Amino acid sequence: MPRYKLVLEYDGTPFVGWQIQANGYSVQQAIEEALGRLVQRPVPTQCAGRTDSGVHARHQVIHIDLDSPIDPFRLQEGLNAHLRPNPISILSAEITESTFEARFSALYRRYCYRILNRRAPATFQRHHVWHIPHLLDVAAMQAGAGVLVGHHDFTTFRASTCQAKSPVRTLERLDVQDVGDDTIYIVAQARSFLHRQVRSMVGGLVKVGLRQLSPRDLEAALLARDRHRCPPLAPPHGLYLDYVSYSEKMDLKETLAH
Amino acid sequence: MPRYKLVLEYDGTPFVGWQIQANGYSVQQAIEEALGRLVQRPVPTQCAGRTDSGVHARHQVIHIDLDSPIDPFRLQEGLNAHLRPNPISILSAEITESTFEARFSALYRRYCYRILNRRAPATFQRHHVWHIPHLLDVAAMQAGAGVLVGHHDFTTFRASTCQAKSPVRTLERLDVQDVGDDTIYIVAQARSFLHRQVRSMVGGLVKVGLRQLSPRDLEAALLARDRHRCPPLAPPHGLYLDYVSYSEKMDLKETLAH
Repeated sequence: MPRYKLVLEYDGTPFVGWQIQANGYSVQQAIEEALGRLVQRPVPTQCAGRTDSGVHARHQVIHIDLDSPIDPFRLQEGLNAHLRPNPISILSAEITESTFEARFSALYRRYCYRILNRRAPATFQRHHVWHIPHLLDVAAMQAGAGVLVGHHDFTTFRASTCQAKSPVRTLERLDVQDVGDDTIYIVAQARSFLHRQVRSMVGGLVKVGLRQLSPRDLEAALLARDRHRCPPLAPPHGLYLDYVSYSEKMDLKETLAH
Repeated sequence: MPRYKLVLEYDGTPFVGWQIQANGYSVQQAIEEALGRLVQRPVPTQCAGRTDSGVHARHQVIHIDLDSPIDPFRLQEGLNAHLRPNPISILSAEITESTFEARFSALYRRYCYRILNRRAPATFQRHHVWHIPHLLDVAAMQAGAGVLVGHHDFTTFRASTCQAKSPVRTLERLDVQDVGDDTIYIVAQARSFLHRQVRSMVGGLVKVGLRQLSPRDLEAALLARDRHRCPPLAPPHGLYLDYVSYSEKMDLKETLAH
């Protein structure tokens, strides 16, 4: 029973999120339906990181088990054909060890949040960036990010519905980057994140960028360990699951990105 | 009667092109309706370069005359408010000399054609790139571009409906660039272009990239001055009007782009 690792990309706009649910069409349902059509039996999927409604992925990882082996390239091509016209694309497929788990084998996850910071509304990217028409103070946001990075109790920055046993996480990286073209990236990396942690932190950093909060206020909110101290969530459509790594060593994709 | 120069960006996907026509909603109609709501009277617009249905613009220029002056920033903001929810955005507005003509004062126009060259279908950019699943030979395309650049009779590469008096144009620049992320840009610059010239040339360059034509075949097609020798047109959704310049000197936007 061979196990496959698939890397995929999706535009989260038309979906209710990764996970199958009764109230709408999910990325998981689209993929499991395509798999079912391809191999003529139900195939459950496991993903590295569930994404909420409207959140995108440039590099989501899933694993599946198939009863009989299929050439990985044929699996990729067949799935992509059956996925049409959904904006979901299988970027690669490979056979992996039977012990590989998309979720539990991951060593780190990286998210990127994209902000368009100009007066004029977004056009091409209107479902793919958060448009903020007031000038953001990037240096203040970088100072705010410095407060959040590291090993902390992130109770303030997790959803009230978060299922994780512990609110403690090690945020390895939180970079605020002015990448030109009126665009700001906020890149967050950790072994794992709490539910809505990235959008909660981005909401706080934007308040700092608008000078409605100081970096010190953000630190006080973190130390309070109180969800009620969390600034409003950033909207989902600026958020991308950008990378999931299973390797200690820096790989090519990692060195290229951002 | 002050004259204004406006720079705008639009996603061409939902429109029948720039020009007002009976068979659908155009960018020009959306803008003239927004202007009419703002100033309470009809205002005709003139653009630097008409775009076909599905073609995008990152930097289209128009001029308008208003009966009474409006602060340019208020004009930009008011138009953007009235343009919602169309994917059209006014990037800047300024008062200009009464002799300025968006179309006739332009010294050069630059288009960029975007190709996604990988097996996996496009997701985020499915309406904004031409997806070509077979590997393109970029060096061959660059050789093909070298054949087309310069002062030529472009009869082979213009639409049969083209209204221009002469088929002779000076193509100042035609660069094929592998920009990473499986993306190829084809950048074309000239004082003016024939109708569908860029999509015709890109269609030919892609045939060369697929090794279905040699650069020498492309040269023979050019020299034949025969529209029937033109390879199939590239689709509109990969094409962007990227810049229009009114200045002899290199400006900031020009040095930043590509």
